[in-house]
Amino acid sequence: MTFATGGGLQGMSEVRVHISVSADGYVAGPDQSLENPLGVGGESLHDWLVALRAWREPHGLEGGEVNASSQVVEESLANVGAEIMGRGKFGGGPGPWGDEWQGWWGDEPPFHMPVFVLTHHEREPLTLSDTTFTFVTDGIEAALDRARDAAGAKDVLVGGGAGVINQYLAAGLVDELEVNVVPLLLGDGARLFDGLGPDLQLEQVRAIEAPGVTHLKYRVVR
Amino acid sequence: MTFATGGGLQGMSEVRVHISVSADGYVAGPDQSLENPLGVGGESLHDWLVALRAWREPHGLEGGEVNASSQVVEESLANVGAEIMGRGKFGGGPGPWGDEWQGWWGDEPPFHMPVFVLTHHEREPLTLSDTTFTFVTDGIEAALDRARDAAGAKDVLVGGGAGVINQYLAAGLVDELEVNVVPLLLGDGARLFDGLGPDLQLEQVRAIEAPGVTHLKYRVVR
Repeated sequence: MTFATGGGLQGMSEVRVHISVSADGYVAGPDQSLENPLGVGGESLHDWLVALRAWREPHGLEGGEVNASSQVVEESLANVGAEIMGRGKFGGGPGPWGDEWQGWWGDEPPFHMPVFVLTHHEREPLTLSDTTFTFVTDGIEAALDRARDAAGAKDVLVGGGAGVINQYLAAGLVDELEVNVVPLLLGDGARLFDGLGPDLQLEQVRAIEAPGVTHLKYRVVR
Repeated sequence: MTFATGGGLQGMSEVRVHISVSADGYVAGPDQSLENPLGVGGESLHDWLVALRAWREPHGLEGGEVNASSQVVEESLANVGAEIMGRGKFGGGPGPWGDEWQGWWGDEPPFHMPVFVLTHHEREPLTLSDTTFTFVTDGIEAALDRARDAAGAKDVLVGGGAGVINQYLAAGLVDELEVNVVPLLLGDGARLFDGLGPDLQLEQVRAIEAPGVTHLKYRVVR
């Protein structure tokens, strides 16, 4: 690990993960596809989230609930200066890029910050409204360097999917991890912590009970 | 499912599970053995528990902490009239029984109630102090019938390991499930919810944050 990518070494900027997980540990169900980007049953992982005003307002939607999850969602959105995501989260299928696919989110993506997409295939940056997607082909550490530069004093969010989160965890590059445990079994799919083990030491920071979800926050111990 | 084994149909008696699980979903680590009955690293799943007065006192040990877990442990021990366990939890290795193996717990087992051990090999009942171990060879529903009879108006605990718990969950025979999530990765081993899926519907009853563990209680929705 170099100084430039060591989590928490550059002042207050941290690398954070906020992810919804089924009770059996999946962040997406089986058979992910264009029609089912989170796999069969995976959309239900976010039922608790999309019902909240704290999520609906920044997504331009009216109404919504206020409950014990609201604070957690506000915190998850606060002080984030850049996001890193895998190609699966950006979408468009495998292989070389065409120009057609512009992500799942339409002309007004909800990120409002620089986004770095990990991919094996080069593509020019794509700007939609106030979000610029930059496609990074030289690996997770390079993507983190660029995201840190873009985020400045703010934090970097590793947004998913599971494969990308697990890679950053395995590399020791994540500082804080919030797991939103949903009372739901998916049975198969993409698993958080897959391929990891006791070398990744966690400290429980807090747990918050909320309607239809429990928020478990961990810090990675170094 | 027959009337006799339908959870909750016989008055107030319920079938309950209380189990400690790593953040990556394992109730025991890899390579379970006589020396490592909970697998490599698995003992650490119970660090939070064995520190508590609420656990130490019924096990004949002095001292111990009182914290947010105390109430949860007291509840887990209260109103239980019989326990069902797998052969792995009772121990002694696979194959036909000798008379030598009398469980892991010495002459004063901590159960103080009838215990039903699921096994493929017949063995006469074994009484140690106020615990009688009865060996059941005709399957999980038969074991539950016998445990219900022994428990009377009290509840039946399905005590583990993971395989037995997963079988009772898959058969729709569990009413309540408390998962004690420990901030620890085991990476491999015996997984809670293995082989299950969305057919098992859970409702989150509560979540309690405590030192080094979070207690998630679910009810099975029928």
